Amino acid sequence: MVLDEKHGTASIELLLGNLGARLDALERKLDTEVTAIKEQLPEDKASLIVFSGDLDKALAAFIIATGAATMGLEVSMFFTFWGLSVIKKQALTAGKSLPERMMAMMTASSSKDLAPSKMAFFGAGSVMLRQMMKQKEVTTLEELIELSRELGVKIVACEMSMDVMGVRQEELMPDVLLGGVATYLADATKSRVSLFI
Amino acid sequence: MVLDEKHGTASIELLLGNLGARLDALERKLDTEVTAIKEQLPEDKASLIVFSGDLDKALAAFIIATGAATMGLEVSMFFTFWGLSVIKKQALTAGKSLPERMMAMMTASSSKDLAPSKMAFFGAGSVMLRQMMKQKEVTTLEELIELSRELGVKIVACEMSMDVMGVRQEELMPDVLLGGVATYLADATKSRVSLFI
Amino acid sequence: MVLDEKHGTASIELLLGNLGARLDALERKLDTEVTAIKEQLPEDKASLIVFSGDLDKALAAFIIATGAATMGLEVSMFFTFWGLSVIKKQALTAGKSLPERMMAMMTASSSKDLAPSKMAFFGAGSVMLRQMMKQKEVTTLEELIELSRELGVKIVACEMSMDVMGVRQEELMPDVLLGGVATYLADATKSRVSLFI
Repeated sequence: MVLDEKHGTASIELLLGNLGARLDALERKLDTEVTAIKEQLPEDKASLIVFSGDLDKALAAFIIATGAATMGLEVSMFFTFWGLSVIKKQALTAGKSLPERMMAMMTASSSKDLAPSKMAFFGAGSVMLRQMMKQKEVTTLEELIELSRELGVKIVACEMSMDVMGVRQEELMPDVLLGGVATYLADATKSRVSLFI
Repeated sequence: MVLDEKHGTASIELLLGNLGARLDALERKLDTEVTAIKEQLPEDKASLIVFSGDLDKALAAFIIATGAATMGLEVSMFFTFWGLSVIKKQALTAGKSLPERMMAMMTASSSKDLAPSKMAFFGAGSVMLRQMMKQKEVTTLEELIELSRELGVKIVACEMSMDVMGVRQEELMPDVLLGGVATYLADATKSRVSLFI
Repeated sequence: MVLDEKHGTASIELLLGNLGARLDALERKLDTEVTAIKEQLPEDKASLIVFSGDLDKALAAFIIATGAATMGLEVSMFFTFWGLSVIKKQALTAGKSLPERMMAMMTASSSKDLAPSKMAFFGAGSVMLRQMMKQKEVTTLEELIELSRELGVKIVACEMSMDVMGVRQEELMPDVLLGGVATYLADATKSRVSLFI
């Protein structure tokens, strides 16, 4: 019998055992590599830092955020520095220090007070931009903010900025999360798109 | 015969069949996983939102875009808000409403009219920046725009901005594509680099 | 004997050989695919373009950079245009042309001279922002710059900007690297997060 002459039956068992062990190892290796790669892959997320308190940049930020959320991306927006004004609902002065009150006076008290970055003209620019958008039936900033909340966009206020500028949580829109740069980076490092606006 | 004693020949057939089936399954699994992962991988693309109409930022945007295209990346630039002025070739007023005309007057009518974000000094800043670049033999904005077209950079004008600001397609450079936030995000979510300028 | 009747011993050897060859091929394919995918995966890197010379944006840039470096990301910062002022330690005028001297006068001579983008009020804004940060015991820009160097953040000055604006290497902080858009893109295309500030 050829089999017995060439390998012997013990050899066949050994070969079968070896192949089985190699298959086991390869199955494990595939799982290990795929798991490691998936941890490194960007996820279906977008994360925006809103640094600016300009009306036009806030509009751009919320148009991108709601667009991305509509496409099925998980969106987080991190509001810092002047961007804090975008998610304010009111400005309180009681209990604030003098520099904190001055800062409150010099920044917008809510999204309705934001001025555009260009064409300020003593406030005419902001009114004009809003009017042209209204005339063209474009969604307003407040509608976009509301829409982003309905779409589950995560809105985070930068705690350090709040502290430095003396902004308190009760001055912000409800349901805003508080966080720091680590909160932002945890989202951003997993995102397909990250923008500084 | 050891083989017959331990397994029986039917067992060998079974073992061989099992190994074959496991190999089939593993080959299919590798293909499925690799295909799924590749769909999630960023592609060799860069996508830039040009929101600003400042000369210096437009220069930075086109230096990055042409640099990336030269390196072999597929580059798309999405011009929105004041950034629309960068890809205008002329400003038309005929047939425009009063606010549209005012907007046209208050924004640059082409790339040659852009002012830098700093040192405006009643126009001196723009002239000076251009002169210093000329003296140092740095490529001008218009040369960079031309180069980007030669390199196949995809140039998209934001339709909503055009509508709000009353900019018509015949005011833009030829071969500009029109699109919305979904157009931008389709590119950006596939890109290695996405910037808001 | 069933085995001999159905396959023959030569067939078993063939089947074993085939399975072995398929395993070899699959092992090689897994390695090839994994290597190719890993080359395309974003790395644990963040890369920031600092275009702005505003105090507040410089602060935001270094807060993100030091935060990311603390989290274990490899961070590179590319200083271009007005951002060059952030990494200047002094302004020299000797041997500069007239436009170069004018540019030097019109830009900040070091991080300590940077003005915030908002609330300039003839310099009051910058002083006020710094004072409020001091009062709240927030790290200063100079401390953040020092921290970023300790954390190994890579700091690159844009050579073209240096050339256009007439900034010489001895005007910059020590250990700053010089590079161009290709240097930036080599880092950015590998990064999880890339921002234009």
